[in-house]
Amino acid sequence: MNAAAEPALVLFAHGARDPQWAEPFKRIQAAIRARRNGAVVELAFLELMQPALTDAINQLVADGHRRITIAPLFMAQGGHLRNDLPKLLDSIRAVHAGVEITVLPAVGDVETILNAIADWLVGALPR
Amino acid sequence: MNAAAEPALVLFAHGARDPQWAEPFKRIQAAIRARRNGAVVELAFLELMQPALTDAINQLVADGHRRITIAPLFMAQGGHLRNDLPKLLDSIRAVHAGVEITVLPAVGDVETILNAIADWLVGALPR
Repeated sequence: MNAAAEPALVLFAHGARDPQWAEPFKRIQAAIRARRNGAVVELAFLELMQPALTDAINQLVADGHRRITIAPLFMAQGGHLRNDLPKLLDSIRAVHAGVEITVLPAVGDVETILNAIADWLVGALPR
Repeated sequence: MNAAAEPALVLFAHGARDPQWAEPFKRIQAAIRARRNGAVVELAFLELMQPALTDAINQLVADGHRRITIAPLFMAQGGHLRNDLPKLLDSIRAVHAGVEITVLPAVGDVETILNAIADWLVGALPR
């Protein structure tokens, strides 16, 4: 299958000064690649880390991808996802007409993940 | 069981200007209460939302709790958890000597949660 036909996934996280901050996102990236062999999964950040979302998507489009899914790895829908991300998407879509860009909900809007967090916390509760 | 004997859990999140941002944390709180009937689970925030962590813990101690677990609901260990939280804990412990305060890892450091996120994303990948 050629790159153009292959969908790409971008894990979009906030970013931080400490390079170690990105470790969980790298582990999610590796886990997805392990589960879906050959999946194109890249990291991108809102600030403080590289690549920026626009740069990551420019590269994917340059590589021939025409279907890109953005997964915002944020706990909840705040200003970053309600205001910053739409502005970024407007400029990205203006440059890449014809590229299908889909945005997934925030981590905190996904029932299975909320349940996994609740299960973990119930297990961690002292008795 | 009296309050003093009962452990308390504090879900510590960043906070945001948009009140809706807190919804996922309220859902986690409700899910934990549903799974562990009578569990004392409170929300607290680093900034922009109330109660602040110090206020939430002051209230729990005033209510008689002497074992408090803080669950930082952050995606990863950045400056907020490496720098801001330890400073808050130093001042809280200075005021509440004799109260046992435990801090759980960040959400992104918990294998089962990373797996739940990876599973969700693999399922969301376009084919």
